[in-house]
Amino acid sequence: MKTILILGAGLSASSMIRYLLKHSVAENWKLRIVDRDKNRVLSLTEDHENAEALTFDATRSDERLPEIEKADLVISMLPARFHAQVAEDCIAAKKNLITPSYISAEMRSLNQKAIDAGIVIMNEIGVDPGIDHMSAMKIIDKIKDAGDKLNSFKSFCGGLIAEEHDDNPWRYKFTWNPRNVVLAGKGGTAMFLDNHEYKYIPYNRLFDRLDRITIPGYGKFVGYPNRDSLSYMDTYGLEGIGTLYRGTLRRPNFCKGFNVFTELGMTDDSFEMANASQLSPRAFLNAFLPYIPNLSVEDKFKYFLREDRMYLYDQFEWLGIFDADTNFGFEGATPAQLLEKLMVRKMSLSEEDKDMLVMYHEFEYEHQGKNKKIVSSMISIGEDPIYTAMSNTVGLPIAICAKMILNNQINATGVTLPIQKEIYEPILKTLEENGIVFNEYESEL
Amino acid sequence: MKTILILGAGLSASSMIRYLLKHSVAENWKLRIVDRDKNRVLSLTEDHENAEALTFDATRSDERLPEIEKADLVISMLPARFHAQVAEDCIAAKKNLITPSYISAEMRSLNQKAIDAGIVIMNEIGVDPGIDHMSAMKIIDKIKDAGDKLNSFKSFCGGLIAEEHDDNPWRYKFTWNPRNVVLAGKGGTAMFLDNHEYKYIPYNRLFDRLDRITIPGYGKFVGYPNRDSLSYMDTYGLEGIGTLYRGTLRRPNFCKGFNVFTELGMTDDSFEMANASQLSPRAFLNAFLPYIPNLSVEDKFKYFLREDRMYLYDQFEWLGIFDADTNFGFEGATPAQLLEKLMVRKMSLSEEDKDMLVMYHEFEYEHQGKNKKIVSSMISIGEDPIYTAMSNTVGLPIAICAKMILNNQINATGVTLPIQKEIYEPILKTLEENGIVFNEYESEL
Repeated sequence: MKTILILGAGLSASSMIRYLLKHSVAENWKLRIVDRDKNRVLSLTEDHENAEALTFDATRSDERLPEIEKADLVISMLPARFHAQVAEDCIAAKKNLITPSYISAEMRSLNQKAIDAGIVIMNEIGVDPGIDHMSAMKIIDKIKDAGDKLNSFKSFCGGLIAEEHDDNPWRYKFTWNPRNVVLAGKGGTAMFLDNHEYKYIPYNRLFDRLDRITIPGYGKFVGYPNRDSLSYMDTYGLEGIGTLYRGTLRRPNFCKGFNVFTELGMTDDSFEMANASQLSPRAFLNAFLPYIPNLSVEDKFKYFLREDRMYLYDQFEWLGIFDADTNFGFEGATPAQLLEKLMVRKMSLSEEDKDMLVMYHEFEYEHQGKNKKIVSSMISIGEDPIYTAMSNTVGLPIAICAKMILNNQINATGVTLPIQKEIYEPILKTLEENGIVFNEYESEL
Repeated sequence: MKTILILGAGLSASSMIRYLLKHSVAENWKLRIVDRDKNRVLSLTEDHENAEALTFDATRSDERLPEIEKADLVISMLPARFHAQVAEDCIAAKKNLITPSYISAEMRSLNQKAIDAGIVIMNEIGVDPGIDHMSAMKIIDKIKDAGDKLNSFKSFCGGLIAEEHDDNPWRYKFTWNPRNVVLAGKGGTAMFLDNHEYKYIPYNRLFDRLDRITIPGYGKFVGYPNRDSLSYMDTYGLEGIGTLYRGTLRRPNFCKGFNVFTELGMTDDSFEMANASQLSPRAFLNAFLPYIPNLSVEDKFKYFLREDRMYLYDQFEWLGIFDADTNFGFEGATPAQLLEKLMVRKMSLSEEDKDMLVMYHEFEYEHQGKNKKIVSSMISIGEDPIYTAMSNTVGLPIAICAKMILNNQINATGVTLPIQKEIYEPILKTLEENGIVFNEYESEL
């Protein structure tokens, strides 16, 4: 019997655990799962005979290492900052490791040690990063293998609300960590390549300078650029490409509205507001508007919006930003924390809601002197509040990869990510069998 | 004979040295001056018998301490980050110290040690900080002494170009460290109090949300808020005040134009631009504008400006931002460094130019049930490129304070700043005798 040790059973672990348990009898696997919330594990595993809920502190190496030593494979779903420490333990115990997170500099530095230990540390194998890499590399390799020249690659991904539940004027509900949504883009100036020109977008324009995208049957989306698209030139082998852009997908109203918050300074997370606990949403907004006697907060806000953006006014009113009757009661809060609280109050997923994960790639290439375009898109709709589209698309590739590693179908060692054909081809195929399907559309330019 | 040790003879030291030398014969002083550029010292002292140019490294404690031990008073005109180290040496040698810079946390922590050593470490005694403190406290104390209630205090200071030399459309020339001008406001969200409401302005709106000020005979100015006005509540003893605002003065066109740079992201100092050395001003601007085929950089910039700000277009054209023929030749430059280079090229002080230092305070207070207002303003015009208004207003208060300390007219010990009547009254009086005069205007509200 082979043992899979799963560290952390948060939001994105549900679909992964379900898939692994489904295969555990035929494959003869034992799942040992630890989470701060043991009940969460028990509700996900439902007394399955091949599952065991553990209670040690997964963030402590002294408690973690003995458990790793008993495992055949480790999957870390802990917050990303713990992955490198877990990796060191896996190297010491010579056990393979999977994480869905970006390879940090610290993680990268462990590559040779992992190779020496003969293990694979597979990272970036959720949805974004993860499915984005695999689905993009499939087409990039196809274009390269045909001897064609790739001129442009744009890629977008977004966690949104399914259309039938998309019932607020922002056209957004939080399907993921709200704090990360409110702080998105704070990491630094966005950089990308557009027709061989380097382009830079500062935070205060990030949600304003948008790419427009239409997906037939799903309507209009916009994309704002992720921080550093340029690093993918190396990862994907795209030297000499003219356009390279990776972005996040939202509905237009969300970005246009959120941009107003960034312009006003309400996403600032660097200082605590004075008297934060006594602020109402109205007073919170007013702190970022000038003092003008005899002018209401509404009027000052309208003046700030300007005529050309006045169509956004209703969605701010809907959000309750002008409410004076309640206060946040959150002492020492930063503006970003108050904004998060305001938005979560109105834009959370209900029990009935289903989320929607959208991925969209656009490739432009030259084939025998002709300019061609491939659009590849994937839409995944959640099942319910546990098995969301986010959880399915993050968890399934991890689970599929786990199965491949345990069946010795992955030969790579060291710190890596799923950009090799022998890894992404079987995973994409199995994802398709599980309903995560890309639609490809090719046209002449 | 008493010895004054002067560490650093940069831009603001000229007027200070001239004043000290003028009094050195009658007062029996010897000035010992060290600067990395010995010729700078020699040109400022012109073989005066009471001056000596030294050549040790003033940033090294082992070379500095023996010289401090020989002095009666030390004046540090080094970059602000060195002041606390100099202060430690002065404490060890029990010698009084003057610096023009803000009291850092490190400096503040030396207070008890300075008291124990029986020395005074006088800081913030240039123009801003310095003359601003003294001229404001004079009126604040007058209002308080009369038993009146101060409701509002706004204070502005700016280094500008004298009107007769104010011949460019930005109405600005660099009279001080250009890098600091380009990076102004980067320290964090500006905070102030307006009619008992806390107000916050993010960097991207700093140069747009302006206070308008008219000084009779000098025309229109605007002010943008300094980072943290609120800390002055404590320093000035203004608990319970409704409006507290400290800002920087510029001409309107400068701020409105500079705000466009901040919106575009061109003041970013956090990353190096790709191919920086090969960029022309035009390509630099274009990197912050979208790629749109068949649209010129000028047209894209106009679209960004919007109709309501189109009156600014000419000043950008004048700056040479659309030039494609020259390149910066500055490898590894940040956007802020390229912007500085672009602006310095066109907006530097010429040999004939005279600068202008403007200070402006506005007080609103209640006197026997009536609301009254005092405006106190000072304008200082430079003499020439050496004895600028900036140098006079920074250097003279330091020199006057030095004279007072050497004549035992200051009893304070410890780390302090000039907010006590017994310090600011004689200094303001001597400044007046030297042409630095405040005009006070009182009116009913």
